[in-house]
Amino acid sequence: MEQFYFTVGPAQIHPKVLEYSSQFYNEGLGSVSHRSEAFRNMYKEADRELRLLLNVPDDFAILFLSSASEIFERLLLNCVHTHSFHAINGSFAHKFYKFSLALGKKAVAQEFPLGTGFTADALKVPADAELICLTHNETSTGVSIPENTIAEVHQRHPNALLAVDIVSSAPNVRLDFTQLDMAFFSVQKAFGLPSGLGVWFIRQSAVEKVQHLAKTQMVGAQNTLDALIKNYKNFETPSTPNIYNIYLLGKIAGEYNRYGVEKLRAETKEKATMLYDFLEQSVHFKAFVQDPQYRSETVIVVDCLHHSPTDVISKLKSMGLTVSSGYASLKDRQIRVANFPVVTKEKIQELIDSLGRF
Amino acid sequence: MEQFYFTVGPAQIHPKVLEYSSQFYNEGLGSVSHRSEAFRNMYKEADRELRLLLNVPDDFAILFLSSASEIFERLLLNCVHTHSFHAINGSFAHKFYKFSLALGKKAVAQEFPLGTGFTADALKVPADAELICLTHNETSTGVSIPENTIAEVHQRHPNALLAVDIVSSAPNVRLDFTQLDMAFFSVQKAFGLPSGLGVWFIRQSAVEKVQHLAKTQMVGAQNTLDALIKNYKNFETPSTPNIYNIYLLGKIAGEYNRYGVEKLRAETKEKATMLYDFLEQSVHFKAFVQDPQYRSETVIVVDCLHHSPTDVISKLKSMGLTVSSGYASLKDRQIRVANFPVVTKEKIQELIDSLGRF
Repeated sequence: MEQFYFTVGPAQIHPKVLEYSSQFYNEGLGSVSHRSEAFRNMYKEADRELRLLLNVPDDFAILFLSSASEIFERLLLNCVHTHSFHAINGSFAHKFYKFSLALGKKAVAQEFPLGTGFTADALKVPADAELICLTHNETSTGVSIPENTIAEVHQRHPNALLAVDIVSSAPNVRLDFTQLDMAFFSVQKAFGLPSGLGVWFIRQSAVEKVQHLAKTQMVGAQNTLDALIKNYKNFETPSTPNIYNIYLLGKIAGEYNRYGVEKLRAETKEKATMLYDFLEQSVHFKAFVQDPQYRSETVIVVDCLHHSPTDVISKLKSMGLTVSSGYASLKDRQIRVANFPVVTKEKIQELIDSLGRF
Repeated sequence: MEQFYFTVGPAQIHPKVLEYSSQFYNEGLGSVSHRSEAFRNMYKEADRELRLLLNVPDDFAILFLSSASEIFERLLLNCVHTHSFHAINGSFAHKFYKFSLALGKKAVAQEFPLGTGFTADALKVPADAELICLTHNETSTGVSIPENTIAEVHQRHPNALLAVDIVSSAPNVRLDFTQLDMAFFSVQKAFGLPSGLGVWFIRQSAVEKVQHLAKTQMVGAQNTLDALIKNYKNFETPSTPNIYNIYLLGKIAGEYNRYGVEKLRAETKEKATMLYDFLEQSVHFKAFVQDPQYRSETVIVVDCLHHSPTDVISKLKSMGLTVSSGYASLKDRQIRVANFPVVTKEKIQELIDSLGRF
């Protein structure tokens, strides 16, 4: 049976991808060098559309890597000498922390119980932290941090750089880029693209602050910050990137801009409210995140009270609706539902009706 | 004007890519997790087809990364404690060497003049070299090393691991995998795919030989050899990879297998001979690599004797034929022509005729 994907990423493919994909091949763009004018134009288009969509200031570079996981690593290697701090509210924040340890840094983690959020007050950031890592929207638990918390953390710790993971919340999050130093996302979430591209935003002053590190420590060889920034000045990349996805990202960000990002955000909120309202009333399902202020609008994590998640997933699948399983240890009690722009209100209603029949 | 691409990578897209691309989306494969059965099946198919195509023994793992450049880095980080040795016959071998230095290794380079090859005899491999890096086919200069040189190097240096770059020669090269420890290529060359995927073959005994390194040195965080191998046992990857390209690679390798790799190789040889024969007779163009035994069959580098390469490139373009410029410092005197499987005999003849009109 044909499926509609409420999966949290890779997610339902944006309906315009197939058309743009054909256009990419028909225009011969699969055969051009990453040092060509044709490539630079694709980079520029993606840069321009993302800047407009997410309100990214001019003093930020937009860099293309192969995944958010690669960005975790490049960011830590290139921007931290010794101390990183990680507020952990799920598996992806934890992975970011583990990467820092693997790279030989003195990473400090502050863990919050799964399904709960935190305020800027609650964070115990060591005075020597060079980098604070926050996960705006935890794809594993469906916990989202209010946007103003990010700004508050930034203001309280002016000496540390602030990196914000918006992997599954861009472009829904209204991120104030004046209140952070870097952010990143991957395209297989809310942009409805196939996987294989991560996008890293970094402020020029942050680049300048860390560029001395390359002289005194090993910062890797591939995709070093220095090489990325030097190439970015020309709208190029250090080596041949995933050109196909850069092209598609520019096109889909353009679609979102023409549709209107505020309209997308209003619809996301409306659809999320429909789902959470249903979960409040359901006897079989409830929202994992109890405090409404920490509930993600884009990744809704659902506790299955009386049915095994495996059964729920397979019954939904038989109705043509594919949802994600719970993440890691939460697999045996939860399902996860993506509420990305490509998920229509009608599809959310269909999912609610289907869950209502349990 | 519509172009046919003799570019050396990204290259002319394989004519079946558009069809398989649609199939990927129509089957919903853009929306599946890298921990799903559907993904494992794509990985298995690519693994099976590549193993058949390149005659890869069972004791080799086949790992997917984002590019050959990423493989340079992961390979050096994970397989070398201190000493790597690099036989340098062009820019990509040189990049591999520079990566080793950037990662803090004591890399030793032996450079050969641009456009020349080397024998196993000629290599002065230090006794303490842990890893020998050879570039089978230099995409920058069109120099190719005879297959038996690789085996000879392996036999003379049984204590060092041997890594062979086959980025632009797979699947044309008849690589004897019993005579090396690892090899790698990227898919935007002779497989006619969009860029964004590198393939790393590594022998199990090599994995065992280097696995202790992760305990005593920093081997990175993303795509460590240990994580790649652990995930490979399940036909999975450490994080979400470029699933689209893994799928396409399995399909195109399957196409090549059904067509017959020996037939492809015979045709490649025939087309290369046509080009080199033309260059022998031409008064305006000649082969950069003078010694026929070192001439690449897949990347033909051409000296422009009486015309500027810019003019040659633009005149060919006006006839619908796109070739690559010379690489780096060779840009002002050379063009490069790819002779990959998708380049037909008719297209090679058309290019020869067009060059003949200068």
